[in-house]
Amino acid sequence: MTTPSPAVNIPDLIRKKRDGGEHTRAELETLVLGYTRGEVPDYQISAWLMAVFLRGMTPQETADLTLVMAGSGDEMNLGDLPRTVDKHSTGGVGDKTSLILTPMLSALGLTVAKMSGRGLAHTGGTIDKLESIPGWTPELEEDRFLAQAREIGLSLVGQSKDLAPADGKLYALRDVTGTVDCLPLIASSIMSKKLASGAHTVVLDVKVGAGAFMRTLDDGRGLARAMVDIGTRAGRQVRAVLTDMDTPLGHMAGNSLEVLEALDTLRGEGPEDLTDLCVSLAAEALSAYGEDEQAARARAAQTLQDGSALAKFRAFVAAQGGDPTFVDDPAKFDVAPGRAEITAPAAGFVQSIDALGVGRAVLALGGGRERKGEAIDHGVGVEVLKKPGDAVQAGETVIRVYHRDGRGLEVARGLLEAGLSVGAQAPQAQPLILDRVN
Amino acid sequence: MTTPSPAVNIPDLIRKKRDGGEHTRAELETLVLGYTRGEVPDYQISAWLMAVFLRGMTPQETADLTLVMAGSGDEMNLGDLPRTVDKHSTGGVGDKTSLILTPMLSALGLTVAKMSGRGLAHTGGTIDKLESIPGWTPELEEDRFLAQAREIGLSLVGQSKDLAPADGKLYALRDVTGTVDCLPLIASSIMSKKLASGAHTVVLDVKVGAGAFMRTLDDGRGLARAMVDIGTRAGRQVRAVLTDMDTPLGHMAGNSLEVLEALDTLRGEGPEDLTDLCVSLAAEALSAYGEDEQAARARAAQTLQDGSALAKFRAFVAAQGGDPTFVDDPAKFDVAPGRAEITAPAAGFVQSIDALGVGRAVLALGGGRERKGEAIDHGVGVEVLKKPGDAVQAGETVIRVYHRDGRGLEVARGLLEAGLSVGAQAPQAQPLILDRVN
Repeated sequence: MTTPSPAVNIPDLIRKKRDGGEHTRAELETLVLGYTRGEVPDYQISAWLMAVFLRGMTPQETADLTLVMAGSGDEMNLGDLPRTVDKHSTGGVGDKTSLILTPMLSALGLTVAKMSGRGLAHTGGTIDKLESIPGWTPELEEDRFLAQAREIGLSLVGQSKDLAPADGKLYALRDVTGTVDCLPLIASSIMSKKLASGAHTVVLDVKVGAGAFMRTLDDGRGLARAMVDIGTRAGRQVRAVLTDMDTPLGHMAGNSLEVLEALDTLRGEGPEDLTDLCVSLAAEALSAYGEDEQAARARAAQTLQDGSALAKFRAFVAAQGGDPTFVDDPAKFDVAPGRAEITAPAAGFVQSIDALGVGRAVLALGGGRERKGEAIDHGVGVEVLKKPGDAVQAGETVIRVYHRDGRGLEVARGLLEAGLSVGAQAPQAQPLILDRVN
Repeated sequence: MTTPSPAVNIPDLIRKKRDGGEHTRAELETLVLGYTRGEVPDYQISAWLMAVFLRGMTPQETADLTLVMAGSGDEMNLGDLPRTVDKHSTGGVGDKTSLILTPMLSALGLTVAKMSGRGLAHTGGTIDKLESIPGWTPELEEDRFLAQAREIGLSLVGQSKDLAPADGKLYALRDVTGTVDCLPLIASSIMSKKLASGAHTVVLDVKVGAGAFMRTLDDGRGLARAMVDIGTRAGRQVRAVLTDMDTPLGHMAGNSLEVLEALDTLRGEGPEDLTDLCVSLAAEALSAYGEDEQAARARAAQTLQDGSALAKFRAFVAAQGGDPTFVDDPAKFDVAPGRAEITAPAAGFVQSIDALGVGRAVLALGGGRERKGEAIDHGVGVEVLKKPGDAVQAGETVIRVYHRDGRGLEVARGLLEAGLSVGAQAPQAQPLILDRVN
């Protein structure tokens, strides 16, 4: 990190971007590190962010911005650990992939020493889901975090606020200045945390569709391309898959319910879409380490059949204070006792189940939070029994709601009914994995 | 002024402009009045200003913005005064036009009840120039200001900070966020103060060239067009002339020196360029009130020949506490005693005399201020003896410097020498008045 020259004039840098110029890394350090240290005021950075929004950034600028953000605070040193891998999803509904993929990767001989987030708005978070298991904690001292990763190949903690602090400050400012939906800023935000987290290989799951941040495949491809490019320029191996998020992934949405579905999948009894996605992501990680793709897929799938991924998950839960008997006895989980059904209004085929509506229904039921720090109910959620393309009879249950004493039920029902469509013709089948970028 | 709805979301308004939308007047009130009252934070307004810079504003939006700014504080009510007229120059070097034009207008039966500014950086200010006359004050209570305008047709006070306070706040933010050079923002800044000042007719002198804010004729035309359009939409009569500011206007730059040249002009003995500009601007004002243009020019010129404009100036100076004997005895003015000469390096024709260099030389000599509130020396300045097109001998004096004990002389000399060019061929004559917009 070079020290910015005090002679640099911030309005000059704003004007440079305003007029379509390309920043040097030193200029980005002046802006971003100055802002992070409180030396450059927010009103100058917000004007600059709007100029970035409207003028864009070159791939080199985006990579430089990301590296500057990654270097704005602590950086994890995973250099001693073998074959490190990290994973990131851009956020979806019913996305319990990390719960399954990370023990698969450790069973495959890779090391996952990972930071995860909590859920916000209609998307869930891995930490919240794991807290469905009594005793499990995301708080580990750094020494123990690294030792556990070395011993069992998997450790998982909450996002440190000392990691890429520039990202948190910039995101808060973007959120209130209309500068969120900007490709280089989104890509650098995600990748700055991944780079600072230290893994050599990063597998990205870019969600596309109604329940995702990226609504179209083209937007998703652009984001995937930008993130892979940043990683490559930073000397990391980054692979991205683009996956459909029009429909929730698997059948379950809600914290305990998603852990139960993840356990089914780790036992080799999970839904086909979810299983296939986890196998594909694991194969991406292995092929980034040079393994043949077909062989990698077979090895990855095997970890779900031979119990090795489940064993890793059990060891991981126990190592972080969780009750390992939950892993083998699904009946122990707190699932809210209230039940309600959304039924097909007519016979036909399910056309669509709006992922965003399902996410918002879970939020309404108390299973998510609107603001950081709010408590959540791990036991509530939504089960999607029929997916697009499935045939249904009139009055047949399509969606089951798990509620606590009716809290939020009417809102959830309204959202789910509005998001369900049934038609006479079977809809065209849509693949889960839409594209790959590497 | 409507009260903005608290339900309006500021980021939504920022996104609207970011995406090229057109704001309603109510939206502009929410943004600008909210900011002026301290309810909308600067970091949101600076992002919005950058979006305005890069997306622009329609003429209707620009007019609405101006009206919102004009209504952000006190508004002068000149409704009782006959045939009110205001004048604004976008700022130049040696521009003493207001000192001559305003008494001409009152001699012609129009009423000037005007707010003027002080000088900043390389441009002078009417208030500073008038303060060369001992006792003259720009501080009048509103009642006296209006009564004097009614009695002698001319009163002139300093800019009230309660007039269009939104402009001051927005300008300060633009200054540090790279959003100054933006046509709708420049036009609305100038016109908001003119509209709030209350005159029915406004004559604008848009300076173009090296010593002006607008460097090219096209830029100047755009600004003139935008300001005339704002005035028309606000129900005022606005006329603009575009004048050359590559070369200083007249011969004198510096406070006392400019008043002396203005007095010469009021006696009918002023330089041709300055006299012609004042006659033209006066004719614009008269023609805005329906007078035939040729007749208006003749009547305006007559006020400089028959002493009626000089008489108005004398009465105006006396009414605001100034010593009227200065008007008739130029020797009374404090002119700095030091003299230095800039001479022609070779025989030939003066090609150019850089107006910006002359303005900066006056500043270096102590005749201007870098920051608001700094004291200035009224007696120093620069006299341009030869103008572009004039023939000179090698070693002949082209520019005379009036300095106080050598203060700033070397800097001034360097600026003036660098800004003077002499060549073998007479340069193409350039008219002072480049265009008109109304």
